[in-house]
Amino acid sequence: MDEERFAHFRPIFSPKSIAVFGASDNRMKFGYRFLRALLDSPFEGGIYPINPRAADVDGLRAYPDVCSVPDPVEYAMICVPAAAVPDVIRDCAQKGVKAVQIFTAGFRETGNEAGLTLETEIVRIAREGGVRIIGPNCIGIHCPASGVPYGPMPLCGESGPVAFISQSGGHAGNIVGEGMLRGIRFSKVVSYGNGCDLDSPDFLEYFAADPETLIIGAYIEGIRDSRRFFEMARETSRTKPIILWKGGQTLPGAETAASHTGSLAAADAVWKGTMKQAGVVKVESFEELADTILAFCHLPFPAGKNVAVITGISGGGGGTSVASTDALTFAGLSVPPFTDETREALKDIVPRAGSILRNPLDLAGAHGQIGVITRAVELVMADPSIDSVILHERLETFTFPMASDNPRCLADVLLEQRGRSGKPLLVVVPYGFGEENRSDLQTTLCAGNVPVFPTIPRAARAIANLLRYVELHGDEGSN
Amino acid sequence: MDEERFAHFRPIFSPKSIAVFGASDNRMKFGYRFLRALLDSPFEGGIYPINPRAADVDGLRAYPDVCSVPDPVEYAMICVPAAAVPDVIRDCAQKGVKAVQIFTAGFRETGNEAGLTLETEIVRIAREGGVRIIGPNCIGIHCPASGVPYGPMPLCGESGPVAFISQSGGHAGNIVGEGMLRGIRFSKVVSYGNGCDLDSPDFLEYFAADPETLIIGAYIEGIRDSRRFFEMARETSRTKPIILWKGGQTLPGAETAASHTGSLAAADAVWKGTMKQAGVVKVESFEELADTILAFCHLPFPAGKNVAVITGISGGGGGTSVASTDALTFAGLSVPPFTDETREALKDIVPRAGSILRNPLDLAGAHGQIGVITRAVELVMADPSIDSVILHERLETFTFPMASDNPRCLADVLLEQRGRSGKPLLVVVPYGFGEENRSDLQTTLCAGNVPVFPTIPRAARAIANLLRYVELHGDEGSN
Repeated sequence: MDEERFAHFRPIFSPKSIAVFGASDNRMKFGYRFLRALLDSPFEGGIYPINPRAADVDGLRAYPDVCSVPDPVEYAMICVPAAAVPDVIRDCAQKGVKAVQIFTAGFRETGNEAGLTLETEIVRIAREGGVRIIGPNCIGIHCPASGVPYGPMPLCGESGPVAFISQSGGHAGNIVGEGMLRGIRFSKVVSYGNGCDLDSPDFLEYFAADPETLIIGAYIEGIRDSRRFFEMARETSRTKPIILWKGGQTLPGAETAASHTGSLAAADAVWKGTMKQAGVVKVESFEELADTILAFCHLPFPAGKNVAVITGISGGGGGTSVASTDALTFAGLSVPPFTDETREALKDIVPRAGSILRNPLDLAGAHGQIGVITRAVELVMADPSIDSVILHERLETFTFPMASDNPRCLADVLLEQRGRSGKPLLVVVPYGFGEENRSDLQTTLCAGNVPVFPTIPRAARAIANLLRYVELHGDEGSN
Repeated sequence: MDEERFAHFRPIFSPKSIAVFGASDNRMKFGYRFLRALLDSPFEGGIYPINPRAADVDGLRAYPDVCSVPDPVEYAMICVPAAAVPDVIRDCAQKGVKAVQIFTAGFRETGNEAGLTLETEIVRIAREGGVRIIGPNCIGIHCPASGVPYGPMPLCGESGPVAFISQSGGHAGNIVGEGMLRGIRFSKVVSYGNGCDLDSPDFLEYFAADPETLIIGAYIEGIRDSRRFFEMARETSRTKPIILWKGGQTLPGAETAASHTGSLAAADAVWKGTMKQAGVVKVESFEELADTILAFCHLPFPAGKNVAVITGISGGGGGTSVASTDALTFAGLSVPPFTDETREALKDIVPRAGSILRNPLDLAGAHGQIGVITRAVELVMADPSIDSVILHERLETFTFPMASDNPRCLADVLLEQRGRSGKPLLVVVPYGFGEENRSDLQTTLCAGNVPVFPTIPRAARAIANLLRYVELHGDEGSN
């Protein structure tokens, strides 16, 4: 990475010290919540509450203004009323603060003259003073490696390969939470709201160069310099997959986006074409976004669209076999027969009645015998006509030992088989009883690159999106 | 109900005594599991394990054959190998058993001559002996009012208005489990597998007449006498909504269905047209099936397609506002502006900055004040331009008191407002942290007819399906 070119991002994602403007003891206020989350996080740098009406906040010494802080301050989180923001940025410039994130709303997104003028003013003050702005109207940054939590959420997972660029603070928070539960680990996350200074193209450029980032996810409502964004995306997506959820895909949605972040609506057809040219994988909902990023994190690219489904281990997989065939077909995937060799080998181990030795494979006939199940999974994973495998089961089936004289459970079997195979293996666990155990199961399976999905249609879309990337990039993706 | 005409259904759904063929102490076998679930259930009639090689099973006296049982036996659950089924049915006829459900597979669904012959044979024996058959290749019946659990699942929820007809034992079990967690209560459930004697038209006819059934759900792969089914459906759906999930909607799915229950494939276009003519609400996945039945159970029909969304109570509802507008628009619904009166009234209570006083309504500006939130929900529910309301929040926000001096929580507010309004109110709680508390929240809210959905797109589809029913039936639906 060209360190000098991206020097301004170092104090943003790895600040040595942080001031929190508007921090107070009022627990309902975001100033309090940003400070509290920071104090609860592993961040080891200096933390300075700024509040002209408090000597201390939450037990920490407070300062009336940032210039009174005796130590250098590199970064600031701003949670003061909109009218006070210009003076805060002036102070930051004077103090030598390198960058600020502005939680405060009431700028361009209001759609009125006063908001627009105020936003123009803070950009001017910041540029003159050498201060970079993230926001306003945003939650700001999150960097597990630096120990900076996501805004007011005391969440700081493990560091990992995914950077996330978000025009919505809520969606970014949701993906961080979802990631902790399902196994998406982040290098850096940024919610940038109105993007008055640093905007999505700037973050994309940085993440493209950032060696810790291998996959880029984004939620975007509008881009001022969309040409620059998509030119960069075309270059970047060849080596780092970009998964993009466009907010405001419909005309009413675009109108809502305009009042959310002041984004201008562009016809969805234009976006679709542009994203395709840029090699970007397009998703249409939060669930598809999370599922797709999860798949890119943990799965190799499938060689083709042929999927096998294994179900019925705890009994009664016939209906799921039909439903999953429909769902995979809807997603543009195929559910081909196994080869004759696989069928013959399965016949030797699975009693015929009650089990249908076709794809989807209903393992009800294995009567929960772990040896039979292990061999069946192995045979299906090895079948040359199969490119990806989905195993569908209830939550409780995965973690209990399957035989009284054998401590191995289904999760062990899957991790072992996945370790031996270069093919994607996905697990589908429908929501139901015992949900309190889902997070542990997901952590265990994800550690061995077996991601967990809640429904077959969602797993199917994730596979289809891996193939979409291959289709967009062909052989260049393997470079 | 014409009691005489439906007399044969009484011993099926309300048997006075049940024999379990193939019950043994082998816990891996379904014979054991059917018996165990029955013993664990509130069923108060006689229970008789039939096993020629055991004097007792699970502590209960066993009989070598059903004719040795000293008391009358009305119903039988058959879990013996396929080849033994004809003799079991002969015995049942001799004993005077009124009906049997056959768990055993290996009949018509095998697609081979032997299976077909065996199925023809058991039908002949049963007809000659006056025994009705449910199955084979099925889980059978479930009736909370009679205390009969769902097959091997020791689940027996409260009795309610929904009858479910299923050609898949797995899907029927899943809807029973989903119902217990989300608030769908059943009058009667039947998994009928191959339907060699009693078939879907027979069950539909009975549920149409059954006074305890108000809503009918179905999972069907194929119908031998589809003309009879849809003629009955057309008559029935005018007063009892029918929600139907067709298994094998795609050609590959239909092929899988053929080997599951021996159902013949019919082009999806034919089904679509037939379902529309019959006034049946068509769904395309298990999730949509459950969501739609849930909506029909708990919601009045919306007057139109205008939906309001409330979000951001725990902060940051902007992104959700955009995403939900897109999702509702995708589902064919509208997200209209509030009336000027509503906007003015909202302005008086919600601080402007940070809150966008439009639909979707981002309540971040209410800073969690329960009085403001209550009044805002009330205003939105009362807005004459709004037909349905969706409230989107994280799980933990619903159940904690929102103020230290007020024990009321968001769930209380919603139940109160729903009680005052004749409009549908839906809650969306995304999956995340604290899932162990979801079931309690769903039970609480459902008791006040506020159903809970996990995503906005799924809530949107449920509303769209309520409107679909109104569209199919017009004013006759209100008769």
